[in-house]
Amino acid sequence: MEDKIVVAVDAMGGDNAPVEPVKGAVDAVNAKENINVVLTGKEEIIRSELEKYTYNKEKISVKNATEIIETGEPPVMAIKKKKDSSLVMALNMVKEGSADALVSAGSSGAILVGGQVIVGRIKGVERPPLAPLIPTRKGVSLLVDCGANVDARPSHLLQFAKMGSIYMEHVMGVKNPKVAIVNIGVEEEKGNQLVKETYPLLKTCPDINFVGSIEARDIPNGDVDVIVCEAFVGNVILKLYEGVGATLISMVKQGMMTSLRSKIGALLVKPALKKTLKSFDASEYGGAPLIGLNGLVVKTHGNSTAKEISASILQCALFKEQGINEKIKEMLNND
Amino acid sequence: MEDKIVVAVDAMGGDNAPVEPVKGAVDAVNAKENINVVLTGKEEIIRSELEKYTYNKEKISVKNATEIIETGEPPVMAIKKKKDSSLVMALNMVKEGSADALVSAGSSGAILVGGQVIVGRIKGVERPPLAPLIPTRKGVSLLVDCGANVDARPSHLLQFAKMGSIYMEHVMGVKNPKVAIVNIGVEEEKGNQLVKETYPLLKTCPDINFVGSIEARDIPNGDVDVIVCEAFVGNVILKLYEGVGATLISMVKQGMMTSLRSKIGALLVKPALKKTLKSFDASEYGGAPLIGLNGLVVKTHGNSTAKEISASILQCALFKEQGINEKIKEMLNND
Repeated sequence: MEDKIVVAVDAMGGDNAPVEPVKGAVDAVNAKENINVVLTGKEEIIRSELEKYTYNKEKISVKNATEIIETGEPPVMAIKKKKDSSLVMALNMVKEGSADALVSAGSSGAILVGGQVIVGRIKGVERPPLAPLIPTRKGVSLLVDCGANVDARPSHLLQFAKMGSIYMEHVMGVKNPKVAIVNIGVEEEKGNQLVKETYPLLKTCPDINFVGSIEARDIPNGDVDVIVCEAFVGNVILKLYEGVGATLISMVKQGMMTSLRSKIGALLVKPALKKTLKSFDASEYGGAPLIGLNGLVVKTHGNSTAKEISASILQCALFKEQGINEKIKEMLNND
Repeated sequence: MEDKIVVAVDAMGGDNAPVEPVKGAVDAVNAKENINVVLTGKEEIIRSELEKYTYNKEKISVKNATEIIETGEPPVMAIKKKKDSSLVMALNMVKEGSADALVSAGSSGAILVGGQVIVGRIKGVERPPLAPLIPTRKGVSLLVDCGANVDARPSHLLQFAKMGSIYMEHVMGVKNPKVAIVNIGVEEEKGNQLVKETYPLLKTCPDINFVGSIEARDIPNGDVDVIVCEAFVGNVILKLYEGVGATLISMVKQGMMTSLRSKIGALLVKPALKKTLKSFDASEYGGAPLIGLNGLVVKTHGNSTAKEISASILQCALFKEQGINEKIKEMLNND
């Protein structure tokens, strides 16, 4: 029998809370035998949501939390003051070991700060990066770091590359994942100071399969599995990816509605187009893990639906089953 | 009568040289009375290209250059050694004043280095940024800096904002252009060290219309006219813009070819779609100017067609007619 896995889900986090987090929890426990979920948040509201669904009642419990951290709040203050919030309660469960992982669609800043301050880093991890999967022509790539630590140093980027490789190999099942560093040209001498200093560290590291620099233009091709950069650049890549994608798709839709001819055409291409665009959506793989903590914290999009929450819970299970944190500790011991 | 304007065009630069640069030159002199073009490169080849077209022979001349700088060459070395290349000859013409501006689709690195080393900066300009126009839902925005100077300082970014504003106002005709700085959140306290130090400089500068931070996700909306960032980030934005756009469009096209139904639909939506996607293409506005030089250097895409070359030549004319360099000097004198 597989080990039981407990995932705390912040039922009040995100634009669609509590409806979608609750539904996502139900979907996840129905999908996998060994998953248990603890929903944190306003108990009464959560219980009335849960009543809509059929599931094994032993596998979902509720922990009452009266406060909610809003998106606009200064993160450090929010984490400190709102002890009885759905997020802080979930973070504390991971810290104390009553949950293996947590999933939240709430305030990014609070999740990042809370992960580091409350859950804490694995000893030896300099900075825990946020590592979302981004869609590509061929599947997904891991973008690491993407918002947790600005003004990073070369040694941080080296750790990101190693932890990202472990994640892609054991959670995503990519054999010997290819690692590249984001650069403004492919030649070795190109780059800013940080990239120039990091490049030789990556090149000589025996633990990773470093393939060199990658220009932003080539990221969507999906030829590389782990894309290393510092958080400011990663954040720009992640957000622009979403922004350009959303703008182009809305312009294509709008363009199709300009004449009767194109409207008829639009009806005919719709199913095929929907399928194509679905393949350029990484949310089915789950959220962005904050890697290198004593436990696992997964941040999903603010507008997450049950599908992304459920996928994130399954991702947590895989993370634990594959012993990712043990592998990270082993990697650090070998350094 | 309007003043005569002389633009040197590197006829050997880019993937489509000399065919497209030559055709672009012909289109430009046919489009505007006061433009004269000097094509630099292998005279015999250029002359045989020119024979294909009808134009006022007095308005295009050829300057023979026997060498070509290739894309892969180390830029500094190439500029230094290949004195008889089409690019260096054009750069020297701007330096000596026999041309007002130059347009090249050749090696980006060589154009950037050559602009700074041969043409030289306006006195007081700390760093001349590369400032391409990027397409948005509403038109175009100027992205500055985009590849000329990595590891920039706050004072550089302030100058980029000022020079970018002058360009957008007087070349693109945008009244009181809105300026924003690329950031990882919209709150004033967000950002890396560079952004945090630059923000107050922009906020208190009386010469620009600063509207605050912009997240990469919102760039494609086109709510801002001048987007300020350091070159590494700008390069990532520019390249990713192109990469995500190209990947999505090719996936949409491919998606439409998956069934008979969608193929018929594709035929019907094609004209409308083509029009929409054309509006998301900045090349009709010209290339990326390197701003702050004693003259003007415009870098176009490596795969430029005559349309982009011709638009760039007209852009050079507008740049001179509007006295952009005089306005930059005036701005520097007021500092």
